Order: sequence, then structure tokens, then C-alpha cells
Amino acid sequence: MTGTPHLGLNGPLGRDNWPIAAAMINFAGSTMNGAGVQDQTAEQWARTLGQVRDAGFRHLDPTDSWLRVADLSPERRAEFAAVVEDHDLAMVSLSTARRSVVDPEHGDEYLEYSHRVLDVAAELGIGTVSFGLFRALTPEQQQALWFWTVQGAEDPDDDGVRRTAVERIRELGEHAESIGVHVSLEMYEDTYIGTADGAVSFVRDVDHPHVGLNPDLGNIVRLHRPVESWQDMVKKTVPYANYWHVKNYYRAEDATTGAVMTIPSPMEFGVINYRDAVAFAIESGYRGAFCVEHYGGDGLSVSATNRDYLRRILPAEVPA
Amino acid sequence: MTGTPHLGLNGPLGRDNWPIAAAMINFAGSTMNGAGVQDQTAEQWARTLGQVRDAGFRHLDPTDSWLRVADLSPERRAEFAAVVEDHDLAMVSLSTARRSVVDPEHGDEYLEYSHRVLDVAAELGIGTVSFGLFRALTPEQQQALWFWTVQGAEDPDDDGVRRTAVERIRELGEHAESIGVHVSLEMYEDTYIGTADGAVSFVRDVDHPHVGLNPDLGNIVRLHRPVESWQDMVKKTVPYANYWHVKNYYRAEDATTGAVMTIPSPMEFGVINYRDAVAFAIESGYRGAFCVEHYGGDGLSVSATNRDYLRRILPAEVPA
Amino acid sequence: MTGTPHLGLNGPLGRDNWPIAAAMINFAGSTMNGAGVQDQTAEQWARTLGQVRDAGFRHLDPTDSWLRVADLSPERRAEFAAVVEDHDLAMVSLSTARRSVVDPEHGDEYLEYSHRVLDVAAELGIGTVSFGLFRALTPEQQQALWFWTVQGAEDPDDDGVRRTAVERIRELGEHAESIGVHVSLEMYEDTYIGTADGAVSFVRDVDHPHVGLNPDLGNIVRLHRPVESWQDMVKKTVPYANYWHVKNYYRAEDATTGAVMTIPSPMEFGVINYRDAVAFAIESGYRGAFCVEHYGGDGLSVSATNRDYLRRILPAEVPA
Repeated sequence: MTGTPHLGLNGPLGRDNWPIAAAMINFAGSTMNGAGVQDQTAEQWARTLGQVRDAGFRHLDPTDSWLRVADLSPERRAEFAAVVEDHDLAMVSLSTARRSVVDPEHGDEYLEYSHRVLDVAAELGIGTVSFGLFRALTPEQQQALWFWTVQGAEDPDDDGVRRTAVERIRELGEHAESIGVHVSLEMYEDTYIGTADGAVSFVRDVDHPHVGLNPDLGNIVRLHRPVESWQDMVKKTVPYANYWHVKNYYRAEDATTGAVMTIPSPMEFGVINYRDAVAFAIESGYRGAFCVEHYGGDGLSVSATNRDYLRRILPAEVPA
Repeated sequence: MTGTPHLGLNGPLGRDNWPIAAAMINFAGSTMNGAGVQDQTAEQWARTLGQVRDAGFRHLDPTDSWLRVADLSPERRAEFAAVVEDHDLAMVSLSTARRSVVDPEHGDEYLEYSHRVLDVAAELGIGTVSFGLFRALTPEQQQALWFWTVQGAEDPDDDGVRRTAVERIRELGEHAESIGVHVSLEMYEDTYIGTADGAVSFVRDVDHPHVGLNPDLGNIVRLHRPVESWQDMVKKTVPYANYWHVKNYYRAEDATTGAVMTIPSPMEFGVINYRDAVAFAIESGYRGAFCVEHYGGDGLSVSATNRDYLRRILPAEVPA
Repeated sequence: MTGTPHLGLNGPLGRDNWPIAAAMINFAGSTMNGAGVQDQTAEQWARTLGQVRDAGFRHLDPTDSWLRVADLSPERRAEFAAVVEDHDLAMVSLSTARRSVVDPEHGDEYLEYSHRVLDVAAELGIGTVSFGLFRALTPEQQQALWFWTVQGAEDPDDDGVRRTAVERIRELGEHAESIGVHVSLEMYEDTYIGTADGAVSFVRDVDHPHVGLNPDLGNIVRLHRPVESWQDMVKKTVPYANYWHVKNYYRAEDATTGAVMTIPSPMEFGVINYRDAVAFAIESGYRGAFCVEHYGGDGLSVSATNRDYLRRILPAEVPA
């Protein structure tokens, strides 16, 4: 049974106060001027977070493709936390990316990193940490305009590797529980958490109350291949969700020729009906935070547009 | 000469009060939980209409793909009307879908149904009823993400069938006139009302003051094949329009290779310039209601966005 | 070194007062009723400018594909200027289109026209005039839904012609300087100003302080062929920019098959991240006006949406 992470709220949850975090995936790990974010000064971080605040956000997911908070020294981490607070931003969740605990080369290292992330999350009062089994982009993916149009790494069809993945995630869940944090597993194609059935089966095998799913439907519907219907994915995965990366895509599909083309879209306009998906999730008991994402173009502005849309369709108030 | 249906208004028509109805096509005849709308309780209807009202609508087209009002018992119909009124919504128009009066199998039945719909419209104070010659989706269309990318049923190239269609629609027009209702004919590909010329020729053959066109341009521009320019369709059909389903599509078309891809879009952003189309229609005397539609994704939210856009581009006031 | 055109402002520049002009490219040279704009009455012009004002614009680029202000008689030009003023609109820039000074047939004529445009700009208080080397659409382009999906005219790989282009543009720059106007050169595929490197090389060869670039990135990213990354184009061209046509496109690109499809998009939603591009430009010293464009569909409404987006991402205030 998936538990509910704390959101840092008092009183009833509703459209006005539901935590909706800005993902930082639209901010690269280095800027157009080439500077690395990990080594930026507090003033430079402030410039980025000032933009996030200016776009109307009150919550932030310090995604590790932008900044590895867990790899900062304690002093630098305190500096970062101060900048976040100065901008009236709160962190209720933290997402990692491309740090699979069963990465063939770096799995052990990433497991260790993942434990470190959990400790740092607890230190910073962050209730949810998102992990995934997706791996580094291949050189071909890095050169593509849209990396998801090139085949990436695939989790092997190997029971032993899958068992290791399940055990390592359970180990993270146990650690998380001991410090009051929840683990969420991001749905991502060609991993053990890459289909609705695969994701559900995986989280059931992990079988830990502090481990749930992050049903990132956008990761799937953007693929240039036949995909599961988003309705089926919602029905199957949402009952296990404890965090949710929400983003959307235009999906052109010619059912006569089989041609498929996708383009990143605002949440309101894409193929996934988030009005229905979110309503169904809340009926199913979902009380986790949201993280609005958008790849391609002005991700921060579209994320802000997504946040405003999400507030419009959330219920005025739900039972705690 | 196409007459003008009543809109239930006093005083001059303009952007603030022009009736813009929410289509209910984005609400399926059954919900994600599988319940049929026809058998829902008043409380369940209220939940749906509450969403429509929450999205800012004051007008509703109770499209029969969602709920067949004409097939409710008088008691249930009164219940439904009460829910509509409770939500401060008004019904000035009603659209039917896939009930062609020349359907090869069900034409007689659908003609009878169409007469029943007219009587119910009059009973409920609805001034316009939209009929079409398009038929049930084929199994291949039902499985497609976008049904219009698969060839559907086609009206036969048969003068006798066309003559029957004209006569049955005229019969509906006569009935409509006798009870103060107007009939609008929806443009839809591969039917006798499937091109601008075909639609105009058809409505002229019907030749009844209570029968006009519903120039649903979106039905045409979304097709993955060469299509008439929307400008030509507007110029030809709008002078006969008495109701208007408005929706829009992104249309990618490579004029070198001939490739075409379409995706549902907000009205403001798609290939049809509704600013010009609506201005031309009003100059040509159009004073009917609008029905904002959107298939795919969150249809209700996009319909609301479409409504706000339409109010922005409507004139502040037009002569009655 | 590219100079900065006057914007007609007092005090510091920022998101509230930065001139953002409506392009008139979305208004054809003739209306849906067939009337030519060049011969319209002041009342008819007023009807168009009333729409521009109603869409919230305070600045106008009287693009010559809509109206050739420089070809009006002095009396008619005064009439036009009065209509502009009546609508509380200001003109800080004027764009020409398809009047290349090295057009094989009309180059001499267009050079003369360009000089006339400069004089008229000075007369009307317009600080920036945009010229380009792109030529008339071919018949195949005119029939296409999106003209950029058909190969158009190409500047010849001929040093003599290029030298003539450089000299004629320098001649225009000298004229412009003498009357207090700046010349901006629009980036457009298959011309000498058709790639980032080509544009920079061209403007450096012109080498005149009153001649800069108009890095119209949208012209490039919409092409159905491999294109430079917008980031590279921004980095290279923006330091030479003195005016900026901004517009955006959805760009679907399958990196496995090589298929490309583009669709006009609102600035916020397309592939170019204007938040980053504009921030980089301002850091690099850009202080020119913006011209919001949109082809296809309701260009005026999308241009207004683009303007509002641009104001949101501009800094509150920059040093003069």
C-alpha cells in the first residue's frame, strides 16, 4: 500500500494551495554562456530562482540534471537553501534523472548517490524523492532535437537484474521510511517501469509503503511508436502514485499509414486529458505534489502556464 | 433564404452576450468508470454540468453523443432541465451526431428520432437543432487515436438516395417551422454536405427558410488529404449558416512531398483564421449561436479557451 | 559596430514600455472581399487599425506586403499617418518584404524604392527600416498552404552579385545615416543573409554603423530540412541585431527517420526559447524594437498573445 508523503501544509488541500513545483529540467546544467550550475555563486543561483519566482512559482523541484544538491558541500548547500528561502520558494520534492541503480557501469555509485539524496532531502525538509531507471542519453540522443525520437538504453530482459533493481529500490524505501521521506518511481520507456503493467508489477514487487509511482505519462505519449492509451495508463498506475511529473504532447498519428509525430505542448492542449486524469487520481486517493515540466522551447514559461491550468482544474477543496 | 433562429436575447447582440455553447462531445457517453450517461442520476449529471459551469460557460449544447435528451422519459427530462437551470446554464441549441436520415440500416429510425428531437427542443425552448448525414464510426475508426485519419462511411453517388436525404431534411424543416425551431446541417466529409459546393447545393435543394448550414470547417481541415481552402469554404457556406460548430486544427502540409499531418488546436492557434471568418459571417448577416468544440485532450478546458477567444474577436455590438 | 536606433522613448527601457510592434503581414494586400489595401479609403484603413488597437497594440510596423506607404502620394500618406495617430498607435519601424536590391529582374527598381522608403521613414519619424534579399514567391509557393515547404528563389553563388548586394546595402546605410534612420537586414533562407555565418559575414562586409541584423529565427526553424540550432544562430547573430522579427514554430523532427514537420506556433510554445534568446540579446546590448509576427490562422490574435508573452519575459528595467 503506497503511503502519502507530507506536503508541508496545514488544513485542507485544494486548488489554491496544492503544491505545484517548477521542474528545473528546462534549465540546463550549464548556461548559454557555458558556466556550470554546480559551481555557480549564490548570486547566479539567485538569478535563476528569481526567474522561477517571477514566473509565479512558490514551489521548486531542484532536479539534479540542473543542480546536484546532494553533491554540494554542507556550506554550499546551506547557501542554496538560503537562496531558495530568500525567493519565498519551498522544496517539497526532488527529482533525480539518469541515475539508475542498475546502470551497468555506474549502478553502485548511483545507489550510493541515491542514499545521499535521501539524507539531503530529509535535511532540507523535502518529503518526496523521485528516482528512475532511465540512463544517460546516448551520443545519438544528445544530438537529436528531441532525444525521444532515437532509441535509448533498455533495461535487459534479465530476472537477476530486475531483482537487483527491486531490492535496491526497496533498500532506498527502507532508508526513506527511517527518515520520513517517500520514494517515487518515474515511468520511463524501456525500463522495468516503462509500461503501466510493468510499473505496477515493479512497485508491487518492491512492496514498501514508502515507495510509489511517478506516472509520467508524457514520457510515453511522446514516443514515435505505438503507445498504450493514456486512459489505460492512468487507470492502472495512478492508484500507486505518490508524486506526479505532469507534461503533455501533441500527438499526430495517422491510423491509415501508421505515421506518428509528436511535439511538446502545454498541458491544456496536448493529447492527455489531465482534467480527467487528475479527477480520477484524486478519486483514487492521490494527495501527492505535482511537478510541472516542459521540454523544448521556453520550458519555464510553459511550466507556469501548466501550473495555472492545473490550479483551474483542481477541486476547490478535497478531504485531507 | 435561410432564416435566423431565436437566441433568447433581448437587446443588441455583441461580444458580451452572444450565446456560445459548450459542446458536450468531449464528455463521452460513458465515463472513465464505465457508467452510461443516459442512466446517470441527476447528481451525476450535476457533477458534469458543474464542471461546465466552473469552466465559465453559460450555454450548453446537450449533444446527443453524450446524452440523448429526446430518449429520456418526460420525468427524467424534467430532472435534466432542472439540473441545467440549477447551474445557471441555458440551452439554445442541440446537436445530433451520427444519426443520418439516410443511414442504410437505421435511416427510418433516425428520421423518427430526429422528429422527436425537434419536439423536445421546442419543449425545452431550444431554437436550433443540428443534424448531419455522417454515420457511425467504423471499428477501424473507433480504434484510431484520431478517427478522421481512417476512411469512414461515404454517402453513395446515387441521385435517389440524395433525393431522399433532401426530402427528409425538408420534412424536418417543415416540422421545425411549425414549432418555431430551426434546422442546421453539419458539414462533414464524404456526405452530401461534405464540400462547400455540395453543402450549398444541398441546402438550396432543400429550399426551406427553417433549414440552413452548420459550416463545421474543422471537420474538413483536419483530414489527412488535400482539402479546400478554409477561405473558399467560408465564402461559399457562411451566407447559408444558421448555427456554427467552431473548432480548429494545426495542419502541417509539405507542399513538396504532399505529406499532411493535423492535430487538434485551440481556435486561436490553428490554421483557420476565425477572426476573418467570423467577421465575414457577421457582415453576411450571421446572427446564429456558436458552439465551441474540441476533440482530444481536455476538450472542456480548450472549449472554454475557445469561448474566451471568440468573445475577444466578436464585435462589441452588431445590429439586431 | 552596429548602432542603436532611436525608439522614441524617454527614460529607462523595460517590459512596460519596450516598443513591440504588430507586423501587418497577417493582413493581406487585399481583403477577403478582394479590395486592394493601397487604394482603400482612410475609413477602411481605420477599420484594420481599429482591430490592431483593439488587440492591445500601441506600436505598428506598416509592413509593405500590406501597404506600401512609400508609394502613397504625400496627401494619402498624411491621411494614413492621421489614421495611425487617431488610433493612438506609433510607428517606430517599417519592414519591407520581397524587394531585394539584387533581384535579377527588379533590383534597380527595388533599390530606388528602398531609398524612397528611407525618406518616408524619416518623414514619419520611423527609426528603423528592415530590408531583405528574399524574392517574390514562386507560383508553386503561392499555391502552397505553407510557402516555406517549397523551394524558393536562391541568391546565386556569385561574388559579383554578392558584392553588388553589399554595396547597395551600404549605400542605403549611408543614406539612412544622413537622415537619422537605421537599416536592419532580415535573415532569410537561401539569401546571402540566410545562415548565421552568412548573415554575420554580410553585415561585417557592409561595415556601416547604421546597418545591423534582423535575426528572424522563425524564417529558418520552420524549414522542412535540417537547420542550424537556434542557440547557435542567437549567439552568432544577436550581437549585430538592431531590430527583431520574433515568431515561433512547432518543429517535429524524427532523428531516426529524418522526417521534419513544422507548424506556426505562439512564441511561448514553439521550439525557440525566446526567454533565453531575449535575455542573451539584452546582455549583449540589444536595445532595438521588437516586431511580433505570426503567419497562418489568426495572425493578429497570436501576435497579440506573443506581445503579452514578450512583456512577461522582458526585464522590468534595463540600463538605457
